[in-house]
Amino acid sequence: MKNYKIIFLPDRKEVEVNEETSLLKAAEKAGVYLNSLCGGEGVCGKCRVQVIKGKASVDKNSIAFFRKEEIENGYILACQTPVRENLEVLIPPESRIEEEQILGESFENKQKTWRESSLLHYSEPDWVSLHKRPSDPASLFEPLASKIYLELPEPTIDDNIPDTGRMMRELRKKLKYSSFEITLSCLKDLFIKLRHSDWKITVTLSRHNDMGQILQIEEGNTVDRNYGVAVDVGTTTVVAQLADLKTGNVLGVEGNHNLQAHYGEDVLSRIAYVCGKGSLDLLQKAIVGNINVLIQTLATAKGIKIEDITCIVAAGNTTMSHILLGLMPCSIRDDPYVPTVDLYPSISAKEIGITINPQGVIQVLPSIASYIGGDTVAGVLACHMADKPETTCLIDIGTNGEIVIGNNEWLLSCSASAGPAFEGGDMRWGMRATRGAIQQVEIDDGKVHYETIGKVKPRGICGSGLIDLIYGLAKNRIIDIDGKFRSSLQDRRLLCGENGMEYIVAFPEETETGEALTIAQTDIDNIMRSKAAIFAAIKSLIDYAGLTFDQLEKIYVAGGFGNYLNIEKAVGMGLLPDIPRERIEFVGNSSLMGARMALLSFHVLEKGIAISQSITNVELSKFALFADEYMASLYLPHIDRERLFPSVKY
Amino acid sequence: MKNYKIIFLPDRKEVEVNEETSLLKAAEKAGVYLNSLCGGEGVCGKCRVQVIKGKASVDKNSIAFFRKEEIENGYILACQTPVRENLEVLIPPESRIEEEQILGESFENKQKTWRESSLLHYSEPDWVSLHKRPSDPASLFEPLASKIYLELPEPTIDDNIPDTGRMMRELRKKLKYSSFEITLSCLKDLFIKLRHSDWKITVTLSRHNDMGQILQIEEGNTVDRNYGVAVDVGTTTVVAQLADLKTGNVLGVEGNHNLQAHYGEDVLSRIAYVCGKGSLDLLQKAIVGNINVLIQTLATAKGIKIEDITCIVAAGNTTMSHILLGLMPCSIRDDPYVPTVDLYPSISAKEIGITINPQGVIQVLPSIASYIGGDTVAGVLACHMADKPETTCLIDIGTNGEIVIGNNEWLLSCSASAGPAFEGGDMRWGMRATRGAIQQVEIDDGKVHYETIGKVKPRGICGSGLIDLIYGLAKNRIIDIDGKFRSSLQDRRLLCGENGMEYIVAFPEETETGEALTIAQTDIDNIMRSKAAIFAAIKSLIDYAGLTFDQLEKIYVAGGFGNYLNIEKAVGMGLLPDIPRERIEFVGNSSLMGARMALLSFHVLEKGIAISQSITNVELSKFALFADEYMASLYLPHIDRERLFPSVKY
Repeated sequence: MKNYKIIFLPDRKEVEVNEETSLLKAAEKAGVYLNSLCGGEGVCGKCRVQVIKGKASVDKNSIAFFRKEEIENGYILACQTPVRENLEVLIPPESRIEEEQILGESFENKQKTWRESSLLHYSEPDWVSLHKRPSDPASLFEPLASKIYLELPEPTIDDNIPDTGRMMRELRKKLKYSSFEITLSCLKDLFIKLRHSDWKITVTLSRHNDMGQILQIEEGNTVDRNYGVAVDVGTTTVVAQLADLKTGNVLGVEGNHNLQAHYGEDVLSRIAYVCGKGSLDLLQKAIVGNINVLIQTLATAKGIKIEDITCIVAAGNTTMSHILLGLMPCSIRDDPYVPTVDLYPSISAKEIGITINPQGVIQVLPSIASYIGGDTVAGVLACHMADKPETTCLIDIGTNGEIVIGNNEWLLSCSASAGPAFEGGDMRWGMRATRGAIQQVEIDDGKVHYETIGKVKPRGICGSGLIDLIYGLAKNRIIDIDGKFRSSLQDRRLLCGENGMEYIVAFPEETETGEALTIAQTDIDNIMRSKAAIFAAIKSLIDYAGLTFDQLEKIYVAGGFGNYLNIEKAVGMGLLPDIPRERIEFVGNSSLMGARMALLSFHVLEKGIAISQSITNVELSKFALFADEYMASLYLPHIDRERLFPSVKY
Repeated sequence: MKNYKIIFLPDRKEVEVNEETSLLKAAEKAGVYLNSLCGGEGVCGKCRVQVIKGKASVDKNSIAFFRKEEIENGYILACQTPVRENLEVLIPPESRIEEEQILGESFENKQKTWRESSLLHYSEPDWVSLHKRPSDPASLFEPLASKIYLELPEPTIDDNIPDTGRMMRELRKKLKYSSFEITLSCLKDLFIKLRHSDWKITVTLSRHNDMGQILQIEEGNTVDRNYGVAVDVGTTTVVAQLADLKTGNVLGVEGNHNLQAHYGEDVLSRIAYVCGKGSLDLLQKAIVGNINVLIQTLATAKGIKIEDITCIVAAGNTTMSHILLGLMPCSIRDDPYVPTVDLYPSISAKEIGITINPQGVIQVLPSIASYIGGDTVAGVLACHMADKPETTCLIDIGTNGEIVIGNNEWLLSCSASAGPAFEGGDMRWGMRATRGAIQQVEIDDGKVHYETIGKVKPRGICGSGLIDLIYGLAKNRIIDIDGKFRSSLQDRRLLCGENGMEYIVAFPEETETGEALTIAQTDIDNIMRSKAAIFAAIKSLIDYAGLTFDQLEKIYVAGGFGNYLNIEKAVGMGLLPDIPRERIEFVGNSSLMGARMALLSFHVLEKGIAISQSITNVELSKFALFADEYMASLYLPHIDRERLFPSVKY
C-alpha cells in the first residue's frame, strides 16, 4: 500500500498516511484538529479545507456545501476526501479547533468539547415541569418500554414447561397482556441468561397492539436503569429530552441546529435537494447525526449508559418524519401533496442508525397530512385539546404555521406557509431565540428599551422581539396601518439606507458587532406577510367551523419564539385574535411536550394515533375565501379593526 | 500478496493461487472437481482431501469429520483450509466428481449435478394427493402468504391520503383484516413502485394475529407467482414439498439426508456435540444447507424463481426445531428436559440463512415438550385427530416413538426412546428405506421370498422388511416367543457366526455385495427392545386415559418405514395393538403432510398452535407401570397374548 505526504497549512504540519486515508484522519494524525459535528459522515460540512497543491476533487455528495468559486479554488470536505497523492492543504480558521481552547484533551474529547459547543443549551420554561407526567390519572403511566424484574422458579420434572412459558407465566402475574411476542435474538439470549442469573432476569417490554413485545432480556435486576428520549425534529432546531422511564422524571434537555440546513433552509428546498440531484441518504444521516449527538450528550451529562436507553418518541413535520425514516418525501411537495405514510411503524432504532440499546425502538408520531405532521399531533396532545368538551385552538407558528381548532368531539386543522420571519429568517438582523437575541422591545417617546437573551449586548432580534418591535412602531405611529414607514416623520432613529427606509433599534455602540441593529422596510413587509398568512388561516378555519373567535375557550400559541411572548402585543399587531388575554396561553415547544407524553404513556400514543386519523384537514389552497382573508390581514392589526380587533387601541 | 503452488494428486494437476485461497477454490481452478454438498460451508464433510507434502492442519470445527488416524495422516476439509504454503494434495476417490460423469458441464453445473445425485428421490404414497388441500371447507384455504393485486385510483387534491392509506383502503375491500402492518423496507418500496407501475401493484401479505402483515410490494400483477415450501426436518431425512400458493397444488417433493448426521446419528448425540466442544452454528448451517439445496432443486425443476417463494412451514422434533432457529438445545437433554421455547415466532427466512424471497417468512410448527415436537403436532393435524369426536391414536415410529391419543375434546401424548432399529440403525444389514432395501419378506417352508425397493439386488433390509422378517421367523417357529433362535432347529439358513446365531435372509449369490445378508440374534434383540418400548408406550397411554384398545376408532401409523407397511404382520409381532385391521392406517410422513396443511391454511396453523398448548404430555419416566409394560412386551407378540392379541395365531 502506498504512502503519501500531507502538509497542513498555515502551520506546515507534516504527516505521512496510507493511500485512501481520509484527510480528516490525516489531520488528526498530524495533530491538526478539524471541526466535525457529524463524526465524518459528510453531512455537517464543518471540516471544509482548501487543497493548495496536488489534486483532490470535491465529492459529489458534498458539493452543496460549496459555492462555485470555492469548488474552483479546491475547497473540499476533509472527511469525504481520500488521500491519493501528496497534498498541501490549507485549514481555514472556521474549520479549526484552536488548540489552546482544549489543550491537553484527547482528540475524542476535543471533538466532544467542540460538538458540545454547538449545542443550543436549550431550556424549557418552568411550566414544563407541570407536564412531567400526563395529567391523566397516574394509572396511565405506561412508558413505551418498561422493565419488569422476574424471579422464576427453577424447572423440575413436574414443572418443565419451556423457558418462554416460564417467563410469560410470571409476566402474566404482573402485567395485563394476554400474550407476548419475542424475537429470535431475545430467544437466543433467554437460554443463557436464565441459567447464568440463577433464574433472575429483567425483561424489557414494549407494547404491540394488545400484546407485550419483549425487546430485551437482562440478567439480574436492572429496573432502575431504563431511559427514553423524546425528540422534537424541527426543520431548523432539533431538541431532545431524556426521561427516566421508571419515575417519569425529565433528566435533561438539549438542542442543536438541524444539520440538514446545509441542504436547504426549509422543507421545500430540502425536498427539492433530495428529489433533484441530491441524496435522501445524506439528509437522513444528517438528522440521525443530530439525534445521536443529543442522546450522547444527555447520556454523558447524566452518567447514563447508551444501552440503558430503550426507546425514543420523535415528533416532526411530515417531511422531517419521512426523511428520518429514510422515506422519499418527493410527492409531499407536488400537487396533490401525498405523503408515503401517516402512521409510521414502530421500528428498531438501529435500523435507521440511531445509537441507543441495540434492541431499542423508535416511534415517530403520526402525521395528519403533507403539511400537518406529528409535531401538530404532539401539540394537540400536549394541550389536551381532544380531552376537553370546550373548543380550543392551537396555533403553532414556524416557517409553516399550523392551526388546529376543536374539542373532544371534532378537530379541524390547516396549515399556512408563513415564511421564516418569526424565526428570524430572511432578515438582515433576524436570528433564532438564542443568546444575544433581543426578545423584548418597548418603544417609548423616541427611546427603545430592549432585553436580550442572556442579558448580553444584542447580536440580532428574534420572533418575540419582532412582535414587540412592530407593535411599538405601529403604536408610536412610526409605521402606518399598512406597515409602511411614515417617511414624513422626524425621528433620529429613522434613516434611509441602501434598501430604503430603516429604523435603528440599537445604535452601533450598543451592539456586539459595533454595527447599528436596524429593521428595514423589506423586513417589516416580510413580517406583515407572515402575520397575515397566519391570521388569515386562523380566521378561515374558524369560519369553516362556523364559529366566532369568542367561542374559543382557549388559544394555545406554540413556536420557536423563545421563552417569552407578549400576548398583548401579538394581538395588538394582528397576529392573534382579539379575545380576552387570559384565554391566550403561550405553550412553547408543544411538539417536544407531546412527544414526551407519548414516551411516558402508551395510552397517549394511542390517542395521538386516533387524533391523526380523525382530524379533518382543510386545504386552504382550495378554500376560496382564504385569499380575501389574507389581503384583509395585511394591515395593523387588520383592515376590519372595529369588528375583529375592538380592544386594540393605538 | 504471495502466491503458492498446489499439486493435486493422483493426476498431478498444478495450479498457482493467492495466499489464503481455500483449497476447494484452488482445486476448482486446477480443474479438479471436488464434492461439496454444502457449498463450502464446512458442514457436509464431502470435500475430504489428504495433504501429502506441506502443512495444513484440520480446522477445529471440522475435526468431527475425521478419525484420529486420518487427522494424523493429514486429512482436512478442502473448503475449510486456506493455502499458506506450497502443497501436494491427494484427492481420495470418494471426494472426486469423475469428469466423465458430467463432461462438458460448467463447474456450477457439475456441483449441481452432484448435489442432485445426493437427493433421495423421495416420493409420497398416492393417498397424499387426497390431502392436497385440508379437507376442511375450501373457504379455509388461506396460505401463510397470499398475493393480492390492486389497481389504485391515482391521488387527486380531493383524495390525497397517504400511499399507505390508499393501498390499505383497497386491501380492506378485498380482505377481512381490520388493520395492516408494514415494514420500513416495504414503505421504502411503496413510493417508487406505485409511481413506476401506474398505481398497479401486487401486495404479498402474511397474517399476524388478526392483522395483515405486508411482506412485499411488487409492480404490476404477479399473483400467479406465489409459492411456498413445507419441510419435514427429520433427524435423519429432510423432505421438502413445493406448493403453488395460488391453487394449493403440490408441484414437487424432494428429500436428502440431514447433513448434521456427521455430528451425531441421533438427537442426543447432536445435542452432546453442540453443548460439548462443538458449535451450534455448524449444525444450524448444516440443516439450513439441506433446506436450501432442496428448495433450489425444486425451484429449478419447476422453472420457478427463488424470489417467488414467499413462505416456509417447517415441522421437526423439538431439538431439530431449536437448532434450525439457532437456539441452544442443551437443556432438552438433561433432567428436567426443558426446551427454550414451544411457540416459535414467525421470522424472516433470511434471518437464519434460508434463501427464498428476501422478505419471505418461515414458521416452525410449535412443540409440545422436549421429546414431542412440531412433527407430532403436524401428524395430529394431518390425521384430523382434533377435529373428530371419535377417539383415535397416532403412532409415529422413529428413533424416538411418539404416541398421541385423543379426540376433539382432549389429547394425550407421550414419547418413548425406541432406538434406531426400525430405521435400519444399529444392525449389520439394516438400512433406510431406499433403493436396494428389502421392504417385504415372506418365509414359507424354509424359503425366503423378498422384494426390494427398485426391484434390484438386495443391499440391506429396512423397517418394513424387518417387521415382516421377525413375524415370519416367529410364525415359522425359527425364533421363540422371547425372540431367541431355537438353537435345536435344523435349517440350512441358520448358522453360528462370530456373534452367535444368524439367519440368512439372502444368500451371497443373491446380493449386490456378494455377501450373505443375515439377521443375527443381537439384531433381533434390538428390534424386540424397540417394539417393546413402542407397544409399552401405547399401552401405558391407553391405561392412563382409562381406555381399552377397542375404544380406538382408528390407529394412524406414521414413520420412515418406506412406502409400505404390512399391518397384519406389525400386529402379529406385537408392535401395534390387536384391533380390527381396517381400523389401522399407515399414513407415511404425516409430519410433512401437516406442515403442508399449515402452509396452505393459516387456520390449520392456528389449530396446530392450539393443539400444542392444550395437549397433555405424559412423562413415561414418571409413570410407574411403564417398566412393567415394557417387560411384558419383550415377547412375540406379548406375554399376555390371550388378552391383548387374541387374533394373533402362530
